[in-house]
Amino acid sequence: MEKKGILIVLSGFSGAGKGTVVKRLLQKYDEYALSISMTTRAPRPGEKDGVEYFFTTREKFEEIIVRNGLIEYALYCGNYYGTPREYVEEKLSAGKNVILEIEIQGALKIKEKFPESLLIFVTPPSVMELKRRLEGRGTEEPEVIARRLARAAEESEGINAYDYIVVNDDLEVCVDEVHRLVDEARRAPVRSQEFIGKIREELKGFAKGADS
Amino acid sequence: MEKKGILIVLSGFSGAGKGTVVKRLLQKYDEYALSISMTTRAPRPGEKDGVEYFFTTREKFEEIIVRNGLIEYALYCGNYYGTPREYVEEKLSAGKNVILEIEIQGALKIKEKFPESLLIFVTPPSVMELKRRLEGRGTEEPEVIARRLARAAEESEGINAYDYIVVNDDLEVCVDEVHRLVDEARRAPVRSQEFIGKIREELKGFAKGADS
Repeated sequence: MEKKGILIVLSGFSGAGKGTVVKRLLQKYDEYALSISMTTRAPRPGEKDGVEYFFTTREKFEEIIVRNGLIEYALYCGNYYGTPREYVEEKLSAGKNVILEIEIQGALKIKEKFPESLLIFVTPPSVMELKRRLEGRGTEEPEVIARRLARAAEESEGINAYDYIVVNDDLEVCVDEVHRLVDEARRAPVRSQEFIGKIREELKGFAKGADS
Repeated sequence: MEKKGILIVLSGFSGAGKGTVVKRLLQKYDEYALSISMTTRAPRPGEKDGVEYFFTTREKFEEIIVRNGLIEYALYCGNYYGTPREYVEEKLSAGKNVILEIEIQGALKIKEKFPESLLIFVTPPSVMELKRRLEGRGTEEPEVIARRLARAAEESEGINAYDYIVVNDDLEVCVDEVHRLVDEARRAPVRSQEFIGKIREELKGFAKGADS
Protein backbone atom coordinates (compact mmCIF):
# COMPACT_ATOMS: atom_id res chain seq x y z
CA MET A 1 0.00 0.00 0.00
CA GLU A 2 3.09 2.20 0.30
CA LYS A 3 5.14 3.18 -2.65
CA LYS A 4 8.61 2.52 -1.28
CA GLY A 5 10.27 -0.58 -2.66
CA ILE A 6 10.76 -3.75 -0.63
CA LEU A 7 14.18 -4.89 0.51
CA ILE A 8 14.45 -8.55 -0.51
CA VAL A 9 17.05 -10.98 0.77
CA LEU A 10 17.46 -14.00 -1.44
CA SER A 11 19.40 -16.95 -0.06
CA GLY A 12 19.57 -20.62 -0.95
CA PHE A 13 21.73 -23.69 -1.16
CA SER A 14 24.62 -23.65 -3.58
CA GLY A 15 23.08 -25.35 -6.62
CA ALA A 16 19.56 -24.07 -5.95
CA GLY A 17 19.89 -21.73 -8.91
CA LYS A 18 19.30 -18.45 -7.08
CA GLY A 19 21.61 -16.54 -9.44
CA THR A 20 19.48 -17.62 -12.40
CA VAL A 21 16.28 -16.72 -10.54
CA VAL A 22 17.58 -13.21 -9.81
CA LYS A 23 18.76 -12.68 -13.38
CA ARG A 24 15.39 -13.75 -14.81
CA LEU A 25 13.47 -11.66 -12.27
CA LEU A 26 15.41 -8.53 -13.27
CA GLN A 27 14.86 -9.31 -16.92
CA LYS A 28 11.16 -10.07 -16.64
CA TYR A 29 9.94 -7.36 -14.28
CA ASP A 30 10.82 -3.69 -14.20
CA GLU A 31 10.50 -3.02 -10.51
CA TYR A 32 13.61 -4.82 -9.24
CA ALA A 33 17.19 -3.71 -8.72
CA LEU A 34 20.12 -5.88 -7.69
CA SER A 35 22.44 -4.69 -4.96
CA ILE A 36 26.08 -5.53 -5.62
CA SER A 37 28.18 -6.36 -2.57
CA MET A 38 31.54 -4.83 -1.79
CA THR A 39 34.50 -6.99 -0.84
CA THR A 40 38.18 -6.77 -0.02
CA ARG A 41 38.98 -10.16 -1.48
CA ALA A 42 40.92 -10.24 -4.76
CA PRO A 43 38.89 -10.67 -7.97
CA ARG A 44 39.00 -14.19 -9.40
CA PRO A 45 39.84 -14.67 -13.07
CA GLY A 46 36.95 -13.36 -15.14
CA GLU A 47 35.34 -11.34 -12.32
CA LYS A 48 34.74 -7.68 -13.10
CA ASP A 49 34.53 -4.77 -10.69
CA GLY A 50 30.91 -3.71 -10.35
CA VAL A 51 29.54 -6.95 -11.79
CA GLU A 52 30.16 -9.78 -9.31
CA TYR A 53 31.37 -7.39 -6.60
CA PHE A 54 32.76 -3.95 -6.03
CA PHE A 55 36.39 -4.74 -5.25
CA THR A 56 38.16 -2.45 -2.83
CA THR A 57 40.99 -2.28 -0.30
CA ARG A 58 40.75 -3.09 3.37
CA GLU A 59 41.57 0.53 4.20
CA LYS A 60 38.75 1.94 2.06
CA PHE A 61 36.31 -0.69 3.31
CA GLU A 62 37.02 0.29 6.92
CA GLU A 63 36.56 3.96 6.05
CA ILE A 64 33.13 3.10 4.65
CA ILE A 65 32.24 1.12 7.79
CA VAL A 66 33.18 4.13 9.94
CA ARG A 67 30.96 6.53 8.01
CA ASN A 68 28.06 4.06 8.26
CA GLY A 69 28.12 3.47 4.53
CA LEU A 70 27.11 -0.21 4.71
CA ILE A 71 23.77 -1.65 5.79
CA GLU A 72 25.49 -4.89 6.85
CA TYR A 73 28.96 -6.36 6.62
CA ALA A 74 30.89 -9.39 7.80
CA LEU A 75 34.42 -10.71 7.87
CA TYR A 76 34.88 -14.14 6.20
CA CYS A 77 38.28 -15.84 6.01
CA GLY A 78 40.05 -12.56 6.53
CA ASN A 79 38.07 -10.67 3.88
CA TYR A 80 35.31 -8.14 4.33
CA TYR A 81 31.98 -8.43 2.51
CA GLY A 82 29.27 -5.78 2.81
CA THR A 83 26.20 -4.13 1.28
CA PRO A 84 26.67 -0.46 0.30
CA ARG A 85 23.90 1.66 1.78
CA GLU A 86 23.56 4.41 -0.79
CA TYR A 87 22.48 2.26 -3.74
CA VAL A 88 19.94 0.36 -1.64
CA GLU A 89 18.32 3.47 -0.14
CA GLU A 90 18.23 5.33 -3.43
CA LYS A 91 16.53 2.45 -5.27
CA LEU A 92 14.05 1.75 -2.45
CA SER A 93 13.03 5.43 -2.40
CA ALA A 94 12.53 5.29 -6.15
CA GLY A 95 10.06 2.44 -5.57
CA LYS A 96 12.32 -0.38 -6.75
CA ASN A 97 12.45 -3.66 -4.86
CA VAL A 98 16.12 -4.17 -4.06
CA ILE A 99 17.50 -7.71 -4.05
CA LEU A 100 20.41 -8.74 -1.84
CA GLU A 101 21.80 -12.15 -2.69
CA ILE A 102 23.43 -12.96 0.65
CA GLU A 103 23.88 -15.80 3.14
CA ILE A 104 21.94 -16.48 6.27
CA GLN A 105 24.17 -14.51 8.69
CA GLY A 106 23.79 -11.41 6.54
CA ALA A 107 20.08 -12.16 6.09
CA LEU A 108 19.51 -12.23 9.85
CA LYS A 109 21.37 -8.94 10.31
CA ILE A 110 19.21 -7.35 7.61
CA LYS A 111 15.98 -8.62 9.21
CA GLU A 112 17.07 -7.24 12.57
CA LYS A 113 17.82 -3.78 11.19
CA PHE A 114 14.98 -3.75 8.65
CA PRO A 115 12.01 -5.71 10.01
CA GLU A 116 10.12 -4.82 6.84
CA SER A 117 12.65 -6.69 4.67
CA LEU A 118 11.47 -9.89 2.99
CA LEU A 119 13.61 -13.02 3.37
CA ILE A 120 13.19 -15.66 0.68
CA PHE A 121 14.97 -18.99 0.63
CA VAL A 122 15.34 -20.76 -2.72
CA THR A 123 15.57 -24.54 -2.70
CA PRO A 124 15.57 -27.27 -5.34
CA PRO A 125 12.57 -29.64 -5.15
CA SER A 126 14.63 -32.33 -3.39
CA VAL A 127 18.09 -33.16 -2.13
CA MET A 128 18.52 -35.73 -4.93
CA GLU A 129 17.92 -32.93 -7.41
CA LEU A 130 20.37 -30.66 -5.58
CA LYS A 131 23.05 -33.37 -5.77
CA ARG A 132 22.26 -33.97 -9.43
CA ARG A 133 22.65 -30.26 -10.21
CA LEU A 134 25.95 -30.01 -8.35
CA GLU A 135 27.27 -33.10 -10.13
CA GLY A 136 25.80 -32.00 -13.45
CA ARG A 137 28.08 -28.98 -13.54
CA GLY A 138 30.76 -31.58 -14.28
CA THR A 139 33.50 -29.27 -13.09
CA GLU A 140 33.65 -30.16 -9.41
CA GLU A 141 35.56 -32.84 -7.54
CA PRO A 142 33.44 -35.25 -5.46
CA GLU A 143 34.96 -33.72 -2.29
CA VAL A 144 33.79 -30.25 -3.34
CA ILE A 145 30.28 -31.59 -3.90
CA ALA A 146 30.34 -33.37 -0.54
CA ARG A 147 31.47 -30.13 1.13
CA ARG A 148 28.65 -28.18 -0.55
CA LEU A 149 26.10 -30.74 0.66
CA ALA A 150 27.52 -30.60 4.19
CA ARG A 151 27.28 -26.82 4.03
CA ALA A 152 23.67 -27.09 2.78
CA ALA A 153 22.91 -29.33 5.78
CA GLU A 154 24.15 -26.53 8.05
CA GLU A 155 22.24 -23.85 6.15
CA SER A 156 19.04 -25.89 6.29
CA GLU A 157 19.00 -25.29 10.06
CA GLY A 158 18.37 -21.61 9.39
CA ILE A 159 15.43 -21.88 7.00
CA ASN A 160 12.84 -21.09 9.67
CA ALA A 161 14.16 -17.55 9.89
CA TYR A 162 12.99 -16.84 6.34
CA ASP A 163 9.59 -15.47 5.43
CA TYR A 164 9.13 -17.85 2.52
CA ILE A 165 10.64 -20.92 0.90
CA VAL A 166 10.39 -21.10 -2.87
CA VAL A 167 11.06 -24.26 -4.80
CA ASN A 168 13.05 -23.74 -7.97
CA ASP A 169 11.90 -26.61 -10.15
CA ASP A 170 10.67 -24.76 -13.24
CA LEU A 171 12.50 -21.41 -13.53
CA GLU A 172 9.55 -19.38 -14.87
CA VAL A 173 7.18 -20.74 -12.23
CA CYS A 174 9.73 -19.96 -9.53
CA VAL A 175 10.38 -16.40 -10.76
CA ASP A 176 6.66 -15.64 -10.98
CA GLU A 177 6.16 -17.03 -7.51
CA VAL A 178 8.89 -14.81 -6.06
CA HIS A 179 7.27 -11.85 -7.82
CA ARG A 180 3.86 -12.73 -6.38
CA LEU A 181 5.27 -13.14 -2.87
CA VAL A 182 6.92 -9.73 -3.05
CA ASP A 183 3.67 -8.20 -4.22
CA GLU A 184 1.63 -9.86 -1.44
CA ALA A 185 4.25 -8.91 1.15
CA ARG A 186 2.89 -5.36 0.94
CA ARG A 187 -0.24 -6.60 2.73
CA ALA A 188 1.70 -7.52 5.88
CA PRO A 189 1.24 -4.95 8.66
CA VAL A 190 5.01 -4.45 8.98
CA ARG A 191 4.97 -3.05 5.43
CA SER A 192 1.70 -1.12 5.76
CA GLN A 193 2.50 1.08 8.73
CA GLU A 194 1.61 4.26 6.86
CA PHE A 195 -1.86 2.95 5.94
CA ILE A 196 -2.48 1.57 9.45
CA GLY A 197 -1.34 4.83 11.03
CA LYS A 198 -3.72 6.81 8.84
CA ILE A 199 -6.71 4.55 9.65
CA ARG A 200 -5.94 4.76 13.38
CA GLU A 201 -5.67 8.52 13.36
CA GLU A 202 -8.90 9.00 11.42
CA LEU A 203 -10.79 6.58 13.66
CA LYS A 204 -9.55 8.41 16.76
CA GLY A 205 -10.71 11.64 15.17
CA PHE A 206 -14.23 10.26 14.69
CA ALA A 207 -14.33 8.72 18.16
CA LYS A 208 -13.35 12.09 19.65
CA GLY A 209 -15.89 13.92 17.52
CA ALA A 210 -18.62 11.55 18.71
CA ASP A 211 -17.72 12.16 22.36
CA SER A 212 -18.22 15.90 22.21
CA MET B 1 3.64 -27.97 0.18
CA GLU B 2 1.62 -30.03 2.64
CA LYS B 3 -1.86 -31.19 1.92
CA LYS B 4 -3.52 -30.26 5.20
CA GLY B 5 -5.77 -27.25 5.00
CA ILE B 6 -4.89 -23.88 6.51
CA LEU B 7 -6.70 -22.49 9.52
CA ILE B 8 -7.73 -18.94 8.60
CA VAL B 9 -8.89 -16.30 11.03
CA LEU B 10 -10.78 -13.49 9.39
CA SER B 11 -11.41 -10.35 11.41
CA GLY B 12 -12.25 -6.79 10.53
CA PHE B 13 -14.11 -3.66 11.51
CA SER B 14 -17.89 -3.83 11.66
CA GLY B 15 -18.83 -2.50 8.22
CA ALA B 16 -15.71 -3.84 6.49
CA GLY B 17 -17.84 -6.44 4.75
CA LYS B 18 -16.10 -9.55 6.03
CA GLY B 19 -19.30 -11.58 6.03
CA THR B 20 -19.74 -10.87 2.32
CA VAL B 21 -16.10 -11.71 1.64
CA VAL B 22 -16.45 -15.08 3.38
CA LYS B 23 -19.69 -15.90 1.58
CA ARG B 24 -18.18 -15.13 -1.82
CA LEU B 25 -14.97 -17.03 -1.03
CA LEU B 26 -16.96 -20.17 -0.15
CA GLN B 27 -19.03 -19.76 -3.31
CA LYS B 28 -16.11 -19.13 -5.64
CA TYR B 29 -13.53 -21.65 -4.44
CA ASP B 30 -14.01 -25.24 -3.45
CA GLU B 31 -11.28 -25.57 -0.86
CA TYR B 32 -12.81 -23.53 1.96
CA ALA B 33 -15.06 -24.44 4.85
CA LEU B 34 -16.63 -22.07 7.35
CA SER B 35 -16.49 -22.90 11.03
CA ILE B 36 -19.65 -21.99 12.89
CA SER B 37 -19.22 -20.79 16.47
CA MET B 38 -21.14 -22.13 19.42
CA THR B 39 -22.79 -19.77 21.90
CA THR B 40 -24.98 -19.78 24.99
CA ARG B 41 -26.66 -16.50 24.11
CA ALA B 42 -30.28 -16.67 22.98
CA PRO B 43 -30.94 -16.61 19.22
CA ARG B 44 -32.09 -13.23 17.90
CA PRO B 45 -35.19 -13.08 15.71
CA GLY B 46 -34.38 -14.69 12.38
CA GLU B 47 -31.23 -16.49 13.57
CA LYS B 48 -31.18 -20.23 12.95
CA ASP B 49 -29.31 -22.93 14.86
CA GLY B 50 -26.34 -24.09 12.78
CA VAL B 51 -26.41 -21.03 10.50
CA GLU B 52 -25.33 -17.98 12.49
CA TYR B 53 -24.34 -20.04 15.54
CA PHE B 54 -24.86 -23.35 17.22
CA PHE B 55 -27.05 -22.36 20.14
CA THR B 56 -26.68 -24.35 23.32
CA THR B 57 -27.08 -24.16 27.08
CA ARG B 58 -24.48 -23.03 29.54
CA GLU B 59 -24.40 -26.51 31.04
CA LYS B 60 -23.68 -28.24 27.75
CA PHE B 61 -21.14 -25.58 26.78
CA GLU B 62 -19.20 -26.18 30.00
CA GLU B 63 -19.30 -29.92 29.42
CA ILE B 64 -17.74 -29.33 26.00
CA ILE B 65 -15.06 -27.09 27.53
CA VAL B 66 -14.20 -29.84 30.05
CA ARG B 67 -13.74 -32.49 27.40
CA ASN B 68 -11.50 -30.13 25.38
CA GLY B 69 -14.06 -29.89 22.61
CA LEU B 70 -13.36 -26.26 21.71
CA ILE B 71 -10.22 -24.84 20.15
CA GLU B 72 -10.89 -21.45 21.75
CA TYR B 73 -13.66 -19.90 23.77
CA ALA B 74 -14.41 -16.70 25.62
CA LEU B 75 -17.03 -15.24 27.91
CA TYR B 76 -18.61 -11.97 26.70
CA CYS B 77 -21.33 -10.18 28.64
CA GLY B 78 -22.19 -13.35 30.50
CA ASN B 79 -22.43 -15.56 27.42
CA TYR B 80 -19.98 -18.13 26.14
CA TYR B 81 -18.73 -18.12 22.56
CA GLY B 82 -16.42 -20.80 21.21
CA THR B 83 -15.11 -22.72 18.20
CA PRO B 84 -15.97 -26.45 18.13
CA ARG B 85 -12.83 -28.52 17.61
CA GLU B 86 -14.20 -31.52 15.73
CA TYR B 87 -15.46 -29.74 12.64
CA VAL B 88 -12.25 -27.72 12.31
CA GLU B 89 -9.92 -30.72 12.63
CA GLU B 90 -11.99 -32.89 10.31
CA LYS B 91 -12.06 -30.29 7.55
CA LEU B 92 -8.36 -29.41 7.91
CA SER B 93 -7.43 -33.09 7.62
CA ALA B 94 -9.56 -33.34 4.51
CA GLY B 95 -7.45 -30.54 2.99
CA LYS B 96 -10.03 -27.76 3.38
CA ASN B 97 -8.97 -24.31 4.53
CA VAL B 98 -11.17 -23.57 7.52
CA ILE B 99 -12.32 -20.00 8.11
CA LEU B 100 -13.05 -18.66 11.58
CA GLU B 101 -14.78 -15.29 11.56
CA ILE B 102 -13.78 -14.12 15.02
CA GLU B 103 -12.55 -11.05 16.88
CA ILE B 104 -9.05 -10.12 17.83
CA GLN B 105 -9.01 -11.77 21.29
CA GLY B 106 -10.04 -15.08 19.76
CA ALA B 107 -7.62 -14.50 16.88
CA LEU B 108 -4.70 -14.09 19.26
CA LYS B 109 -5.65 -17.25 21.16
CA ILE B 110 -5.78 -19.19 17.89
CA LYS B 111 -2.37 -17.88 16.79
CA GLU B 112 -0.88 -18.88 20.13
CA LYS B 113 -2.23 -22.43 19.93
CA PHE B 114 -1.82 -22.82 16.17
CA PRO B 115 1.22 -20.85 15.00
CA GLU B 116 0.53 -22.09 11.47
CA SER B 117 -2.86 -20.37 11.39
CA LEU B 118 -3.23 -17.39 9.06
CA LEU B 119 -4.67 -14.16 10.46
CA ILE B 120 -6.25 -11.80 7.94
CA PHE B 121 -7.73 -8.42 8.77
CA VAL B 122 -10.31 -6.97 6.38
CA THR B 123 -10.60 -3.21 6.18
CA PRO B 124 -12.46 -0.76 3.96
CA PRO B 125 -10.20 1.50 1.87
CA SER B 126 -10.64 4.43 4.26
CA VAL B 127 -12.41 5.51 7.41
CA MET B 128 -14.67 7.81 5.39
CA GLU B 129 -15.80 4.77 3.44
CA LEU B 130 -16.33 2.78 6.67
CA LYS B 131 -18.51 5.59 8.02
CA ARG B 132 -20.41 5.78 4.74
CA ARG B 133 -21.10 2.03 4.80
CA LEU B 134 -22.28 2.09 8.40
CA GLU B 135 -24.57 5.04 7.67
CA GLY B 136 -25.65 3.52 4.36
CA ARG B 137 -27.32 0.64 6.09
CA GLY B 138 -29.86 3.26 7.09
CA THR B 139 -31.03 1.20 10.02
CA GLU B 140 -28.72 2.44 12.74
CA GLU B 141 -28.98 5.33 15.14
CA PRO B 142 -26.12 7.86 15.03
CA GLU B 143 -25.08 6.72 18.52
CA VAL B 144 -24.79 3.12 17.31
CA ILE B 145 -22.60 4.25 14.43
CA ALA B 146 -20.47 6.35 16.79
CA ARG B 147 -20.08 3.33 19.08
CA ARG B 148 -19.01 1.14 16.16
CA LEU B 149 -16.42 3.69 15.08
CA ALA B 150 -15.12 3.95 18.66
CA ARG B 151 -14.89 0.15 18.75
CA ALA B 152 -13.07 0.17 15.40
CA ALA B 153 -10.57 2.66 16.87
CA GLU B 154 -9.87 0.15 19.65
CA GLU B 155 -9.63 -2.77 17.23
CA SER B 156 -7.23 -0.85 15.00
CA GLU B 157 -4.66 -1.09 17.80
CA GLY B 158 -4.50 -4.84 17.26
CA ILE B 159 -3.93 -4.91 13.49
CA ASN B 160 -0.19 -5.54 13.82
CA ALA B 161 -0.88 -9.01 15.22
CA TYR B 162 -2.37 -10.08 11.88
CA ASP B 163 -0.39 -11.67 9.07
CA TYR B 164 -2.08 -9.61 6.38
CA ILE B 165 -4.40 -6.65 5.89
CA VAL B 166 -6.74 -6.86 2.92
CA VAL B 167 -8.63 -3.87 1.64
CA ASN B 168 -12.23 -4.60 0.69
CA ASP B 169 -12.93 -2.00 -1.97
CA ASP B 170 -14.01 -4.19 -4.89
CA LEU B 171 -15.44 -7.47 -3.56
CA GLU B 172 -14.08 -9.74 -6.31
CA VAL B 173 -10.60 -8.24 -6.08
CA CYS B 174 -10.66 -8.65 -2.30
CA VAL B 175 -11.83 -12.28 -2.44
CA ASP B 176 -9.19 -13.22 -5.00
CA GLU B 177 -6.56 -11.52 -2.90
CA VAL B 178 -7.53 -13.48 0.19
CA HIS B 179 -7.41 -16.65 -1.89
CA ARG B 180 -3.93 -15.78 -3.20
CA LEU B 181 -2.64 -14.97 0.29
CA VAL B 182 -3.87 -18.32 1.60
CA ASP B 183 -2.19 -20.07 -1.29
CA GLU B 184 1.12 -18.22 -0.77
CA ALA B 185 0.95 -18.82 2.97
CA ARG B 186 1.94 -22.42 2.26
CA ARG B 187 5.42 -21.14 1.36
CA ALA B 188 6.06 -19.82 4.88
CA PRO B 189 8.37 -22.13 6.89
CA VAL B 190 5.79 -22.45 9.68
CA ARG B 191 3.50 -24.19 7.18
CA SER B 192 6.23 -26.22 5.42
CA GLN B 193 7.71 -28.09 8.36
CA GLU B 194 7.24 -31.46 6.67
CA PHE B 195 9.15 -30.38 3.57
CA ILE B 196 11.90 -28.69 5.60
CA GLY B 197 12.26 -31.75 7.84
CA LYS B 198 12.63 -33.99 4.82
CA ILE B 199 15.29 -31.78 3.21
CA ARG B 200 17.23 -31.61 6.49
CA GLU B 201 17.16 -35.33 7.02
CA GLU B 202 18.27 -36.11 3.49
CA LEU B 203 21.07 -33.55 3.64
CA LYS B 204 22.32 -35.02 6.91
CA GLY B 205 22.25 -38.45 5.28
CA PHE B 206 24.47 -37.24 2.46
CA ALA B 207 26.81 -35.37 4.80
CA LYS B 208 27.21 -38.56 6.86
CA GLY B 209 27.77 -40.65 3.76
CA ALA B 210 30.49 -38.27 2.63
CA ASP B 211 32.25 -38.54 6.00
CA SER B 212 32.62 -42.30 5.95
